[in-house]
Amino acid sequence: MRFDLITLFPDFFTSPFSSGLLGKALAKKIAEVHCCNPRDFATDKHRRVDDEPYGGGVGMLLKPEPLFAAVESLPTLPRREIILMSPQGEPLKQPLLQGLAHNYDQLIVICGHYEGVDDRVREHLVTREISLGDFVLTCGEIPALALINGVVRLLPGTVGKEESLKAESFESGLLDYPQYTRPAVFRDWEVPEILRSGNHGAIARWRMEAQIQRTKERRPDLWEKRGDFS
Amino acid sequence: MRFDLITLFPDFFTSPFSSGLLGKALAKKIAEVHCCNPRDFATDKHRRVDDEPYGGGVGMLLKPEPLFAAVESLPTLPRREIILMSPQGEPLKQPLLQGLAHNYDQLIVICGHYEGVDDRVREHLVTREISLGDFVLTCGEIPALALINGVVRLLPGTVGKEESLKAESFESGLLDYPQYTRPAVFRDWEVPEILRSGNHGAIARWRMEAQIQRTKERRPDLWEKRGDFS
Repeated sequence: MRFDLITLFPDFFTSPFSSGLLGKALAKKIAEVHCCNPRDFATDKHRRVDDEPYGGGVGMLLKPEPLFAAVESLPTLPRREIILMSPQGEPLKQPLLQGLAHNYDQLIVICGHYEGVDDRVREHLVTREISLGDFVLTCGEIPALALINGVVRLLPGTVGKEESLKAESFESGLLDYPQYTRPAVFRDWEVPEILRSGNHGAIARWRMEAQIQRTKERRPDLWEKRGDFS
Repeated sequence: MRFDLITLFPDFFTSPFSSGLLGKALAKKIAEVHCCNPRDFATDKHRRVDDEPYGGGVGMLLKPEPLFAAVESLPTLPRREIILMSPQGEPLKQPLLQGLAHNYDQLIVICGHYEGVDDRVREHLVTREISLGDFVLTCGEIPALALINGVVRLLPGTVGKEESLKAESFESGLLDYPQYTRPAVFRDWEVPEILRSGNHGAIARWRMEAQIQRTKERRPDLWEKRGDFS
């Protein structure tokens, strides 16, 4: 999998790309990430990449020319998607990450900035618009980082097989059950006895009930989407 | 505002904290961020911070002792919240960020890792559990970074007053309207004439209609929550 990041702040990614499991995956060449700075494609002498919005309003917009030129400068792999990270996009969910991980060779990710981007980028350049959630950040680099991490995590070799299985449990639409590790007693707080019983059937039932209970309490929206489950 | 990050990978944050608007805000001391590594509070000779789950299962859990000890080692400001980033938490939304930005002096953010954390941390240490969204990442550092960025963005001095106003428009529960900047014509694609008309009333109406249209089409869930609007 090849990622191309279109970003005004390539330095943002230095330490996240060399840290933790994502760092290891990139070092193992499970995926490769390239940064491309639209400022290198600005045509005026000030290398300007932003300008004021037509019709008035606050903040600055990313101009269309440097973004088109940056994307068009990239090599083209067969199955590719040109993604704009923006709060106007489709909300990021696990099935979306699965789709990206399994169906593409190249993901080009445009990190928005300032007040946003000229809408012609949306209309004529990007093939997909993705939102990290209903909140505002100062930059698109963090959403892009989340997307890359979530996709690379699903590529073979990044995490053990076991952990992938775990992800599928998340995809069942239920929250996770409570988990405990040693010590059995910490500050008078004991690990539930059933988990120490060795009775695997009883443990599985306890966990499923806990998942249902927790999902109903904390995320009735997820529970309802799941429909009647018994 | 003081942030304390409880993280096994403090190096992850180096470049994001010195880049872009967040980097500038931290340099201006609008907020301060401290990292605290639970590994420094592990008590055995291998500095072990994780262990296997009781009752069987895959992956490793963060042990309770180093996390309690790390949090308890921190200075205590009057209004503080101890936050665990995990997919089981309350979904991150703009009003949640507003609440954190305005009502607290200190946010302690625990970055989960491995398969998760011993549930006694949830039950007896954290005061709030927040989820970045319904997807799985390899680490809690990215969700923590999103939270910090979103909160710092709302603190006075980080962005101009104008941009803050813009955020309030997002909080109205509608997606943003399309925006355009120079050139008026790019590759035969023209900026809508009305935006170049100078007729501010007509522009405002066009934008509001575009917001409604876009929200209905792309995010019927947001539109329904908003109720009847006219």
